[in-house]
Amino acid sequence: MDERFVIVGGDAAGMSAASKAKRDEPGLDVTVFERGEWVSYAACGMPYYVKGEIEDLEDLVSVTPETFREERDIDLRTGHEVVEVDPDAETVTVERDGERFEQSYDHLLIGTGARAIEPPFDGIDLEGVFTIHDMDAADAIEDDVSDDLERAAIVGGGYVGVEMAEALAGRGLEVSMFEMLPTILAPFGETAAGVVENHLREQGVSLHLETAVEGFTGDGRVEAVELEDEESVPADVVIVGVGVAPNVSLAEDAGIEIGETGAIATDEYGRTNDENVYAAGDCAEERHVVTGEPAHVPLGLTANRAGRAIGQTVAGSPTETGDIAGTAIVKAFELGASRTGIVDEDEAREAGFDPVSVTIDAASRANYYPGASELTVTLVADRESERVLGASLVGQEGVKRIDTVATALHAELTVSELENLDLAYAPPFSPVWDPILTAAKVLNGQLE
Amino acid sequence: MDERFVIVGGDAAGMSAASKAKRDEPGLDVTVFERGEWVSYAACGMPYYVKGEIEDLEDLVSVTPETFREERDIDLRTGHEVVEVDPDAETVTVERDGERFEQSYDHLLIGTGARAIEPPFDGIDLEGVFTIHDMDAADAIEDDVSDDLERAAIVGGGYVGVEMAEALAGRGLEVSMFEMLPTILAPFGETAAGVVENHLREQGVSLHLETAVEGFTGDGRVEAVELEDEESVPADVVIVGVGVAPNVSLAEDAGIEIGETGAIATDEYGRTNDENVYAAGDCAEERHVVTGEPAHVPLGLTANRAGRAIGQTVAGSPTETGDIAGTAIVKAFELGASRTGIVDEDEAREAGFDPVSVTIDAASRANYYPGASELTVTLVADRESERVLGASLVGQEGVKRIDTVATALHAELTVSELENLDLAYAPPFSPVWDPILTAAKVLNGQLE
Repeated sequence: MDERFVIVGGDAAGMSAASKAKRDEPGLDVTVFERGEWVSYAACGMPYYVKGEIEDLEDLVSVTPETFREERDIDLRTGHEVVEVDPDAETVTVERDGERFEQSYDHLLIGTGARAIEPPFDGIDLEGVFTIHDMDAADAIEDDVSDDLERAAIVGGGYVGVEMAEALAGRGLEVSMFEMLPTILAPFGETAAGVVENHLREQGVSLHLETAVEGFTGDGRVEAVELEDEESVPADVVIVGVGVAPNVSLAEDAGIEIGETGAIATDEYGRTNDENVYAAGDCAEERHVVTGEPAHVPLGLTANRAGRAIGQTVAGSPTETGDIAGTAIVKAFELGASRTGIVDEDEAREAGFDPVSVTIDAASRANYYPGASELTVTLVADRESERVLGASLVGQEGVKRIDTVATALHAELTVSELENLDLAYAPPFSPVWDPILTAAKVLNGQLE
Repeated sequence: MDERFVIVGGDAAGMSAASKAKRDEPGLDVTVFERGEWVSYAACGMPYYVKGEIEDLEDLVSVTPETFREERDIDLRTGHEVVEVDPDAETVTVERDGERFEQSYDHLLIGTGARAIEPPFDGIDLEGVFTIHDMDAADAIEDDVSDDLERAAIVGGGYVGVEMAEALAGRGLEVSMFEMLPTILAPFGETAAGVVENHLREQGVSLHLETAVEGFTGDGRVEAVELEDEESVPADVVIVGVGVAPNVSLAEDAGIEIGETGAIATDEYGRTNDENVYAAGDCAEERHVVTGEPAHVPLGLTANRAGRAIGQTVAGSPTETGDIAGTAIVKAFELGASRTGIVDEDEAREAGFDPVSVTIDAASRANYYPGASELTVTLVADRESERVLGASLVGQEGVKRIDTVATALHAELTVSELENLDLAYAPPFSPVWDPILTAAKVLNGQLE
């Protein structure tokens, strides 16, 4: 196969595609352009580096550039930024050290990722104010946090905010968190979010919900967070984590179609409206398994899986990227929370369902077995079809059980079918009725 | 509803049926005859009572007799043994303190459970030799194990054997284990069993595989285990755990059909060949979700679920008992092992499949995250249909993930569908590709 596969972006989607394509079809020329220096890194591990649980930032790199180049025969070029795509000519324009060159392609993958949103806060450029968007940012934060600092402020109560709260508290700082919405972790639903909020407070985090941040003040370095309706709150370091936005301008400028979610529209093979141009990872849409509609949920597994499928497709075996269920899991100090599918009832109604939901508390192990703790399960189903729509879990252990519900969503199981699953039971691992089964049993009672 | 529902046996199946029937149809007369004194107890918790992790045997009772009688209005009679069933007359004969009486029924549930098999070993009646078959046995063992004892022998390497090895080692005894087969925990497959065997040895258990026990010797109290081809092994206490047999003689004598597995044959509603007689729990067959054939896998969830469904059916809402997947999980010292479906390739072939399997090692969490340990996954599928047939997991943490595969079995997912599940990822909980997904990915490679 005398073809060239060009990939823009050297993280999860790009490097998975490169590796899979080259493995399946060694004759393919595979070139990856990455504007930064880091490739194939686990962004999700960065809070734990800041916390001090991971010694070396390099530990987050799953495959080194040398391995890609030497063992996998991939032409990986870091410090190279693709600044233009010309789909008609099938070329990309690459900039390196201020110089530009063109590169032709037969197949192109856009894996430009997402960026941390930087709201137009006053003082966002002050020293000590960070967004966490890449490895260099993690490094900078880790460097910045010294024994001299006492108070940290986290703006935004999403995954990154919650993980960074744990990280900075772990470094000995007093942490305040500011969230505009009535709850943190909105995608997990009110119940799970409420449990996490109480836990954060118990851990000493000062939680400011429904609180709008105006900006930051300080003399060179940040000294306080300014709020709209309240007194300012002192802060020696600030992390802004208010969400991410897909990097689509390169695609948009090339006439590639952008979907309603704001990310690049793709078909089931990860192909854009141009048949030789694919998109994957945090910049692309995927189909949601419950709604069947395009969704943008930028997470690691999605990027890896879609990249790998596209690599396989480019190598000659058309492979679907797979649907997503929006499955997510987060650690918050001593607590875990997880979610999948549609948890929010309004969102379910918008998708055309008539949602019914229950919330139950159950023991994570047999209640007489040492170490058992309380697990709170919310399960949502459609009244008419009785199909399971989504769930959230929160508790000290056992929240990876969300995978059972995620599997049920992919298989389109009804609540009765979920209730009748033969799940694993022994006292050290579960009550006789796994908490998921108990939730299904109770929800089934509501459907009768 | 002026009808009488009579239940034989007051453990999981019986009490679940009684509670559900009475809740759904309060007008029903519900009578339970239990020959012993304990009802609704968690037999699976007994090893942890012996180990000393559960203080009071009563803690294993999930609902007390008083609650059943007073709050649930169930006529629960302990110390009452049903000695005969007459399906034509629709009566049972009950014995109590040597006296007999008859009781008529409209619906009958046989929930007679299973008993520990007692092989015809010489010396099985010696003091210090126990089978673990009920709460009184657990109590007797716990009482018997004192500081004077030094060496324990476990005959049989199934769940009970492995759990009792942990329990007695936890009480400070040196433990020897004797198993006739080449591996312990045969239903988990060779790979998982091998990992557990190594771990038992590391924990100081002296493992005698492919070793036939002839009997026990001692003067009043057991002093040694006698082997067929080897020297005898000293033992101060012996636990015989070589499996269980369903208690079917009551049913058999009444002309109720016994299935090929030796347990009572039932239809999808738990009904026997007599339309007013149901059977559930450790004495009954259930349909296997992979083979579609009757199977006998006596475990707690199956008993609870089938009992509950029968209670609902008797109360007027026909409810299927649900299929089983043979899902099981066991703790062995610091290790967990789990299994579901068909793991053994010979068994798969006998069921008409063409099995392909892979075994992989993967990290339980992101490999850079503290506490990550190795998880070994064996995944089995059918070559032609590519349907997932079963799996086993073994490792220090994360073996409850077997539920994902169990769910896949119920939904009849293919390996590709399993590989494409959107499972939960964050570094403290999983690698990007959950070990189940990695196994599916590798197995899929073998199927292409």
